[in-house]
Amino acid sequence: MSTTVSPLAPKSYPDMPEIDGVQFATAEAGVKYKDRTDVLLVTVREGTAVAGVFTKSKCSSAPVDWCKDRLPDGRARALLVNSGNANAFTGKKGQAAVELSADIVAGALECPSAEIFLASTGVIGEPLPAENFSSVIQELKDKQDGANWLDAAKAIMTTDTFPKVATGTVELDGETITINGIAKGAGMIAPDMATMLSFIFTDAPIAPDVLQDLLSSQTGGSFNAVTVDSDTSTSDTVLLFATGAAEKKGISSVTSSEDPRVSVLRAALGDVMLDLAQQIVRDGEGARKFVEVRVDGAESDQSAKTIALSIANSPLVKTAVAGEDANWGRVVMAVGKAGEPADRDRLAIWFGDIRVAVEGERDPDYSEEAASAVMKEEDIVIRVDLGLGRGSATVWTCDLTKEYVAINGDYRS
Amino acid sequence: MSTTVSPLAPKSYPDMPEIDGVQFATAEAGVKYKDRTDVLLVTVREGTAVAGVFTKSKCSSAPVDWCKDRLPDGRARALLVNSGNANAFTGKKGQAAVELSADIVAGALECPSAEIFLASTGVIGEPLPAENFSSVIQELKDKQDGANWLDAAKAIMTTDTFPKVATGTVELDGETITINGIAKGAGMIAPDMATMLSFIFTDAPIAPDVLQDLLSSQTGGSFNAVTVDSDTSTSDTVLLFATGAAEKKGISSVTSSEDPRVSVLRAALGDVMLDLAQQIVRDGEGARKFVEVRVDGAESDQSAKTIALSIANSPLVKTAVAGEDANWGRVVMAVGKAGEPADRDRLAIWFGDIRVAVEGERDPDYSEEAASAVMKEEDIVIRVDLGLGRGSATVWTCDLTKEYVAINGDYRS
Repeated sequence: MSTTVSPLAPKSYPDMPEIDGVQFATAEAGVKYKDRTDVLLVTVREGTAVAGVFTKSKCSSAPVDWCKDRLPDGRARALLVNSGNANAFTGKKGQAAVELSADIVAGALECPSAEIFLASTGVIGEPLPAENFSSVIQELKDKQDGANWLDAAKAIMTTDTFPKVATGTVELDGETITINGIAKGAGMIAPDMATMLSFIFTDAPIAPDVLQDLLSSQTGGSFNAVTVDSDTSTSDTVLLFATGAAEKKGISSVTSSEDPRVSVLRAALGDVMLDLAQQIVRDGEGARKFVEVRVDGAESDQSAKTIALSIANSPLVKTAVAGEDANWGRVVMAVGKAGEPADRDRLAIWFGDIRVAVEGERDPDYSEEAASAVMKEEDIVIRVDLGLGRGSATVWTCDLTKEYVAINGDYRS
Repeated sequence: MSTTVSPLAPKSYPDMPEIDGVQFATAEAGVKYKDRTDVLLVTVREGTAVAGVFTKSKCSSAPVDWCKDRLPDGRARALLVNSGNANAFTGKKGQAAVELSADIVAGALECPSAEIFLASTGVIGEPLPAENFSSVIQELKDKQDGANWLDAAKAIMTTDTFPKVATGTVELDGETITINGIAKGAGMIAPDMATMLSFIFTDAPIAPDVLQDLLSSQTGGSFNAVTVDSDTSTSDTVLLFATGAAEKKGISSVTSSEDPRVSVLRAALGDVMLDLAQQIVRDGEGARKFVEVRVDGAESDQSAKTIALSIANSPLVKTAVAGEDANWGRVVMAVGKAGEPADRDRLAIWFGDIRVAVEGERDPDYSEEAASAVMKEEDIVIRVDLGLGRGSATVWTCDLTKEYVAINGDYRS
């Protein structure tokens, strides 16, 4: 947790309404940090449905493996998250630590440990002192409350400089349901999510398989469309909980993906997820610029996304943005290296509204001054039209600054 | 060209012998830089064989396209290289510029323009003022000489902080033949070669197809095994010229890849290429550490190389090296994100001789002090054993420092 807040941080936080069936509390378990909250316990109403998406890393963390194993049942009673230690690459000790963590929570809540979900974020390779949770579990249980979502978001921060929350509402059957999310992440952020944790809650009554479908369908355009440094974490976890408490208002349960209400839910959930994902980029380690990379005219959407990520992950593009340099030659380079179909002589590139290149060469009408003015903005759009087909994709990233190097050069020590 | 030489630069340069059939000269054509040489003309003996490997970028530069088109004939008379402008993404103007460049040289040397090879390095997207070469071509022709290879290497530098040369000899038929190479490159260096140019010359008599086989076979383990920043240039070019002048000493021409002398040539050429490739990493923009990444125990050599490059390209691994932090958790992360077969619980990791992780967790005998001592060295070896099979690969990279960001944040302006 840095003392300097990212200049790209949101200027204000939304009012986060309570969600029926969701309560939580934070505590100081002393996992790594001193004098700050580092553990979050969320309890959810009995019968809550849960869905999840996780890192694709071949070296996933112990809590990721734990959650994946629990997910098929689709039911949750609680979520325990700690910061300061990722419990990743910790071997048998890591497995023992997740079991102990779940037992501690299940014992206090008097529920099966299989309904406890877990997430950890922080240093890789250090044994997690899960026994620390014993000494705070009673406090966490006693303080359960549904109000202060910012506190919840703060407890899961690592190198984040600001807590990340988002909220949305949807009308279902004439009644309002709410979707709240929190997230953490600042570095090791790449598609497939990096050290990115997000927990989203709704009071809508949604069956587990529909919930999973909803979550999976919205991940590609949100959490899997942001990149800070191309590094994919061992711990990435997004969990979506539906308490179903809104059934009390007369909303019937959504039990099929064919239900017309699903598309409404999908849109609202997608908005909350994109908001959180973009906040992660805005808190990218050392970030001073927020960059949207849009690729049109590709042979397919997938091809467009590969090219967009090649641009967004290029250290040379990112350092040029940091230097406020409209260096579109590096965008050409990044298109070229992506390995996807591209025809140099059909390529056009824009910074903001300024077309800097067209038909394979510098735009004859291009004004360096105008392009430089775009680069001085805090939010920058880089757009590429490949001129080949109808595939398109948008991803978001930040610049690569000296501060990124400073933050990551001595994170562990 | 920086005023501060990389701390990883070689402490001395080898004596570069002359090569029979190779002469060259440099001049100041004012392409971009002032008061420094920026153009190199190498002339080679009539009948010289040539081979080449090039960037795989889909947006390759005009001179790359030119060379590829000329290569099937396998014969060269001259090579013109300029720094300061890559003549890449310059559309029809770029094509006109290569044609004009070749015509200028061919006119002066009274040879077909199809035997002129071209390479350009520098800014992308700016039209190359090829007409500048007219005013220096006579000087370049008059000054042709075979002695000062360092001068040749200096004329092709961009952000390089030192010129790169290497030399080797081989006994063929009881006589000595020589292989000399020069190279440039410091950023935009990734496998498939980035803004990397290298020109290698030998007096050995070798037929074009054998020459191409020799060159291609040695590229994977040298120029395609180094990475500075994962960015692949539009301009990467390696050309190998064999003048055949050693035939005068009684060495018969190597006309078949089955010739037993090929393996001797292969080894010597490989040494020169690896030497040059490693010098490029040692001149990586902002580099303070030279890192060898070795992966053993993979399912195949190709899988090992993918994992090795995932480690070598990870910004988090590279910043940890810059910070002298033995952060092996990031190595685990990089193995995990590579997408190749890996079993977390069989993984072992070494920094230098210190095994820091074994069987999926921290080595119980691992001393942080000993690992930290390794990280303070200038040359660092990171070794990973996947414990799955017999595939292995070695790649070389450098650390990621604030200076990299500084150099690339305002390169163009």
